[in-house]
Amino acid sequence: MGNADYEGPHRVAIPPPKPFLKSLKSGLKETFFPDDPFRQFKNQPASRKFLLGLQYFVPILEWAPRYTFEFFKSDLISGITIASLAVPQGISYASLANLPPIIGLYSSFVPPLVYAMMGSSRDLAVGTVAVASLLIASMLGREVSPTENPKLYVQLALTATFFAGVFQAALGFLRLGFIVDFLSHATIVGFMAGAATVVCLQQLKGILGLVRFTHATDLVSVMRSVFSQTHQWRWESGVLGCCFLFFLLLTRYFSKKKPAFFWINAMAPLTSVILGSVLVYFTHAEKHGVQVIGHLKRGLNPPSVSELALGFGSPYLTTAIKTGVITGVIALAEGIAVGRSFAMFKNYHIDGNTEMIAIGMMNIAGSCTSCYLTTGPFSRTAVNFNAGCKSAVSNIVMATAVMLTLLFLTPLFHYTPLVVLSSIIISAMLGLIDYEAALHLWKLDKFDFIVCMSAYAGVVFGSVEIGLVVAVAISLLRVLLSVARPRTFVLGNIPNSVIYRSIDQYPVANNVPGMLILQIDSSIYFANASYLRERISRWIYEEEDRVKVSGETSLHYVIIDMSNVGSIDTSGISMLEEVKKTIDRRGLKLVLANPRSEVIKKLDKSKFVENIGQEWMYLTVGEAVATCNFMLHTCKSSSNPGPEYNSQDNIV
Amino acid sequence: MGNADYEGPHRVAIPPPKPFLKSLKSGLKETFFPDDPFRQFKNQPASRKFLLGLQYFVPILEWAPRYTFEFFKSDLISGITIASLAVPQGISYASLANLPPIIGLYSSFVPPLVYAMMGSSRDLAVGTVAVASLLIASMLGREVSPTENPKLYVQLALTATFFAGVFQAALGFLRLGFIVDFLSHATIVGFMAGAATVVCLQQLKGILGLVRFTHATDLVSVMRSVFSQTHQWRWESGVLGCCFLFFLLLTRYFSKKKPAFFWINAMAPLTSVILGSVLVYFTHAEKHGVQVIGHLKRGLNPPSVSELALGFGSPYLTTAIKTGVITGVIALAEGIAVGRSFAMFKNYHIDGNTEMIAIGMMNIAGSCTSCYLTTGPFSRTAVNFNAGCKSAVSNIVMATAVMLTLLFLTPLFHYTPLVVLSSIIISAMLGLIDYEAALHLWKLDKFDFIVCMSAYAGVVFGSVEIGLVVAVAISLLRVLLSVARPRTFVLGNIPNSVIYRSIDQYPVANNVPGMLILQIDSSIYFANASYLRERISRWIYEEEDRVKVSGETSLHYVIIDMSNVGSIDTSGISMLEEVKKTIDRRGLKLVLANPRSEVIKKLDKSKFVENIGQEWMYLTVGEAVATCNFMLHTCKSSSNPGPEYNSQDNIV
Repeated sequence: MGNADYEGPHRVAIPPPKPFLKSLKSGLKETFFPDDPFRQFKNQPASRKFLLGLQYFVPILEWAPRYTFEFFKSDLISGITIASLAVPQGISYASLANLPPIIGLYSSFVPPLVYAMMGSSRDLAVGTVAVASLLIASMLGREVSPTENPKLYVQLALTATFFAGVFQAALGFLRLGFIVDFLSHATIVGFMAGAATVVCLQQLKGILGLVRFTHATDLVSVMRSVFSQTHQWRWESGVLGCCFLFFLLLTRYFSKKKPAFFWINAMAPLTSVILGSVLVYFTHAEKHGVQVIGHLKRGLNPPSVSELALGFGSPYLTTAIKTGVITGVIALAEGIAVGRSFAMFKNYHIDGNTEMIAIGMMNIAGSCTSCYLTTGPFSRTAVNFNAGCKSAVSNIVMATAVMLTLLFLTPLFHYTPLVVLSSIIISAMLGLIDYEAALHLWKLDKFDFIVCMSAYAGVVFGSVEIGLVVAVAISLLRVLLSVARPRTFVLGNIPNSVIYRSIDQYPVANNVPGMLILQIDSSIYFANASYLRERISRWIYEEEDRVKVSGETSLHYVIIDMSNVGSIDTSGISMLEEVKKTIDRRGLKLVLANPRSEVIKKLDKSKFVENIGQEWMYLTVGEAVATCNFMLHTCKSSSNPGPEYNSQDNIV
Repeated sequence: MGNADYEGPHRVAIPPPKPFLKSLKSGLKETFFPDDPFRQFKNQPASRKFLLGLQYFVPILEWAPRYTFEFFKSDLISGITIASLAVPQGISYASLANLPPIIGLYSSFVPPLVYAMMGSSRDLAVGTVAVASLLIASMLGREVSPTENPKLYVQLALTATFFAGVFQAALGFLRLGFIVDFLSHATIVGFMAGAATVVCLQQLKGILGLVRFTHATDLVSVMRSVFSQTHQWRWESGVLGCCFLFFLLLTRYFSKKKPAFFWINAMAPLTSVILGSVLVYFTHAEKHGVQVIGHLKRGLNPPSVSELALGFGSPYLTTAIKTGVITGVIALAEGIAVGRSFAMFKNYHIDGNTEMIAIGMMNIAGSCTSCYLTTGPFSRTAVNFNAGCKSAVSNIVMATAVMLTLLFLTPLFHYTPLVVLSSIIISAMLGLIDYEAALHLWKLDKFDFIVCMSAYAGVVFGSVEIGLVVAVAISLLRVLLSVARPRTFVLGNIPNSVIYRSIDQYPVANNVPGMLILQIDSSIYFANASYLRERISRWIYEEEDRVKVSGETSLHYVIIDMSNVGSIDTSGISMLEEVKKTIDRRGLKLVLANPRSEVIKKLDKSKFVENIGQEWMYLTVGEAVATCNFMLHTCKSSSNPGPEYNSQDNIV
């Protein structure tokens, strides 16, 4: 254990107490401003500060001056590509949300424009998403029937969108974006796959041409609904649906094989819509059981403030708020995750909180102009990225294309068969079932896999909300369990070194005779204090038993390595005091190694440092062991000897 | 940085993968059996195992054979002392719960006997408690009026007691006792003080002789109720109450000054009851506005299974279950904490889970014999301890004394004025307001103080449940916040050593030129992964800025000390991969120091080890720095040089 460089033990520093307000301030800063957004504002004149602040909230002001014609050419191409996706998807997802199809088109016009101003992602393509649409349908549909009371239903959907926007923007302004982090990757994989399964099941209605259908979304109810009315199935509809689904899947498969032909996949939905419409128009299939969209109003988004006002006054306001908050969080999680992933690819930075404000503002603006909930869907963003977009201008191009559609082309969708929309939805949803990710979770982390699977099962067999709540609860339970049951390790000496490591991980590490070296692997809180007390006692008596049997030097010192104890609360301090008493009573000596700043401050204030004696605290386990060894071999006669201290050796 | 003992870097060990079921088993064992209760069962014959098992659940079998007459003398004295406290307190708390006073006496008969068999504490004195009584009154009283429908109310109270018992025993059997740990010390201090305040406020009814009183417990409602009927105040009652309160407080003060006279304090309630009864009897004060207890039925506890059955069938069953679960947890927290503290004094071990089973069984048995919720109250246990109890036999003595009271002495309580009971309750409650503990919390840990104060304010201004929920929520929020925002530190070299410590705590520590050494202070989870990614990036660019300004060696290596990262999930692994990409892109090199067993296993599985290169992982920060330094000074021309590896130097 000797070390030629060894100069005697270093003393543990007790940092001077920090004024309460100062430490509160720095704590709040770390919690709410970890990315230090005010950094660039430092030492700037007021006018510059104002400009920077404006640019922070409206990033287009920052990059527009640098925008070039070269960029525009790329953005034009990608914008047109995503518009060709946006039109059929917009109509499909609106019908998934039980909203009039035109609202889906409206939603691809205003929100992308707002996002282009305020968003910081260069790749995000704004649009409606299937999962949020489904959630709106299931949560609002429980209270108000979209077929019996369509006006109220639309009002509530817009109100929900408004609250989703307010909630999203508020999270951003209050810098509470980390709430979204509690939806772990595993949760999202399971949840998305579950939602995709449920959405596909819902499409059986369109594919089979059914008129009545259950409002529930779970597997059992849907299957019962489907098989209880087999005599209502329409083969015309089914054949058409399967053909288009096959076509869409084929193009997807082809594009996946040859990424250069991504546009085939991107154009396929629009092609299907056109093909389907033409087919119906010439065969008059709408008279043979193939349902069509019907009349779509021409013209741009009408303002919807009056609808919102009616929604606010309705008795279902709380339902709308609840729907808004839940769908808002989910949409936010998808939008932020998508934006972040593509920013990683292109190596630029996205500010999560600005993104939240941008997404929130675009939904608030959307809810006032007859749009329902939008975010940045993965599929559309990936197409945008593949098409070579350079900036948010591609969103503006898309919005313009949708605007032209709204102004001039809506009559063309009259004969579009609903079954084509169902095929488009199914083909998009199948891409969301990421079984490879689930397999990856299984391999890496069984617990994450369980979280993922429970989210999936919760969504498929219960409801979307149940799945979400179950998955978040299990994830949190894991965190709490890891706090309540922190691990403790016995450390041993790595031969020919002064390094001490867990014997579990390094079987070569040797026990030090006469000493038990324990490492506590977490902050000590009320939630784990009594567990740690029991566990430490158990380590001690187990070691005493072991030593008794093996006949080694009997135990004299219990060294607790506090390196990993980041903080401690009052319950934790009481626990340490009790452990000290227990150890004293067994005639052993408690030694602490490397107590950290927060911990030593509190131990000092609570007189525990006085109680244990500062000479029994060391900077490293190695130094603690060296001194204890010295005591053990030189002063064996005297019980509980204190180390001789040479103050010159101390460094602090 | 050189070290004569330095033999080249040690290699980080990647432990062999453990079979999933084996690691699951050991994880479950650590979670549910941290105290290893099966230890003593090992290598024992079956008959002995059976006996040990029986003794585990019925500890009296274990200690009864060793019981001596000496012990009995001590237990007799302490048993009689606590009985003199149990009778008036039993009656008082029952009236606090709006139950017939006789039920309070019943509750001091059966449950202590059950506890004496099954409990493992030698000091705990069983009885009813004020807080649980108040909770029963407020939670059940909201649904069923105790004055209008007293029979149903009693049935529900017994049913609630039954469920409390079942819940408590279940927690013990399922070894989920750690749920109680989530009620932190700070929560309990604030909650108890709040409940005591509320209980005192409720006593204004008795002291002022009011007949009508609010069912709410919050300060505002009570004050409004008291001052809205000033014309109903009875001075006779008030004077009597104040006199007795003064007497009780005086004896408490005296006993506190001279601990040898603890019995004065213990006897004071009974003395008050006797004095009060005599006074009323001779002055006929019951005819002048002083309310008395009235007739108490003679005889032992009647069985109450039929009442339970009626409670089960009533429409208020869910209320009873909810009340039972909440009061059960609170009673459990008090009982366990009290038992554990006194066991610490006398240096014996208490098994939390056995205690829960014992307390649960005594409440189940109690609910079948007309008793309501009991636990181990602090005040009575302290008296028991001071009176020199040796074992649970003191509970048996107390139960016998109460039995005699029930059989022969109940008529004596006919004239006991209610105002004396109020005084007894107030005097007991004032002892629960532990402002010194609150002050201690303020000094040591501001956050614990906030938790304590919010529990207090929640109980006093809201309700008992609100206070509890708020305090637990804030405590949990703290835990979650500490998980979501783990600290990161820059480490520096302690001069003349190979030790690296946080520069914050050790201002003497020096930055190492060309390197940034970061320490992550927590396991990496989904909840903190994106925060850590941002924070690490910020550390890096801040360091680059600093170096640029100061003109030091530019940054080449980012060393992340993983010593404190106990585990990692899939989100955490993605985070590390992204951090690696960011660092690579800046032309820097990522180096890991001391990745731990759980972490390295997952990093290996996910190919991150391959990605970073095993030669860029070191056992200590010191070794990582030494190698990087070597690279920096010898191979400055080549970019990102790998360390030369001498396999003989590796230890694992």
